[in-house]
Amino acid sequence: MNLFVYLVTDDKYFKDRDLVSTIEQALQGGATAIQYRFKNKSARQMYEELLVLRELTKRYGADLVVNDRVDLAMAVGADGVHVGKQDLPPDVVRKIVGDSMYIGYSVNSVEELKEVDHLPIDYIGFGSVYETTTKENYKLVGIEGLRQAVKLTSKPIVAIGGITHYRVKKVLEAGAKGIAVVSAILGFEDVKKATQSLVEACRSVHRERFFMP
Amino acid sequence: MNLFVYLVTDDKYFKDRDLVSTIEQALQGGATAIQYRFKNKSARQMYEELLVLRELTKRYGADLVVNDRVDLAMAVGADGVHVGKQDLPPDVVRKIVGDSMYIGYSVNSVEELKEVDHLPIDYIGFGSVYETTTKENYKLVGIEGLRQAVKLTSKPIVAIGGITHYRVKKVLEAGAKGIAVVSAILGFEDVKKATQSLVEACRSVHRERFFMP
Ligand code: NI
Repeated sequence: MNLFVYLVTDDKYFKDRDLVSTIEQALQGGATAIQYRFKNKSARQMYEELLVLRELTKRYGADLVVNDRVDLAMAVGADGVHVGKQDLPPDVVRKIVGDSMYIGYSVNSVEELKEVDHLPIDYIGFGSVYETTTKENYKLVGIEGLRQAVKLTSKPIVAIGGITHYRVKKVLEAGAKGIAVVSAILGFEDVKKATQSLVEACRSVHRERFFMP
Repeated sequence: MNLFVYLVTDDKYFKDRDLVSTIEQALQGGATAIQYRFKNKSARQMYEELLVLRELTKRYGADLVVNDRVDLAMAVGADGVHVGKQDLPPDVVRKIVGDSMYIGYSVNSVEELKEVDHLPIDYIGFGSVYETTTKENYKLVGIEGLRQAVKLTSKPIVAIGGITHYRVKKVLEAGAKGIAVVSAILGFEDVKKATQSLVEACRSVHRERFFMP
């Protein structure tokens, strides 16, 4: 599990853009994990895209995580599956996947976090840390909420929501083990360069603490 | 696997109607299987509804089949999963579910049928046998297509598409092992009575060939 620079996809950024070549640019820029999240595609289309992304992420040594669809994650041998409150409950997911992959779970408030420590999950996606344009309805937890969250759970927290390269330092210093982003990568035409900026920002903070290539 | 009178759900018939009580009426009327098929619900909502329907179908000795979402089928211990060309391929589904459930597959032409005999599927949903208002784009195979299909495969065929109680005889005599319906049950306010009509029609044909309660 390597979620330092964790790219989450979103339908709205792929209207006029090729999925595979865009993801490859992010991988070239140093993204350590890709979460495949689309809402308006058939299972067959997602399966076929995921097969290609599975090979691609392996080639770059990056993780592939599938949002919501546990069956698709299993079908392509993903490294992880990510669920939220609208998806299958984590304990049910664990029964289905066994130990074959890790499970991530979205949490959107410090209060909820108190309930999740017993869940069979491997990391927590926590946010929104900052204001974001990616989601229309979201809860703002703030950098202070993130700091509290890190103290409240022993599970690794990946921060999400409005994170840009100039906010990376604050987010990691608050205790996040990784940053999950959508627009900070996909909002740019030069996806590779945008990813590199984030990786550089992470690296400068993490240099003494973690190995990053 | 008991797909004699196989009710398939559809979003458009549940806008002003309670799901569970409607399904229970169909079960009271003698439906032998329920295929849960909805497109506009979250996985969590489907999971919760399916848990209730799992208990309900068990109580009536009926099968529960989940459309498309293999993970949900596994999560609730469904009897079967049904996929089509837009869903996960049957061989991939088989790898995921093992022998824990049966797999149904939709076929919409005699030509396609020649390709499916080697697939790890347990029944074929074949249609549309008649004109239907449930789907907007569909291929009409006709009763003659159904007759040919039965000859071309050793797998049991469940006929679907525009089947009403007065067409049941023709469909079963063409060799279908069961009838799958949407509007012939859900298109009526008295769901129990509509189901009974179909069951009666099936029974009068099947009486000498199959045990039906
Ligand atoms: Ni009539």
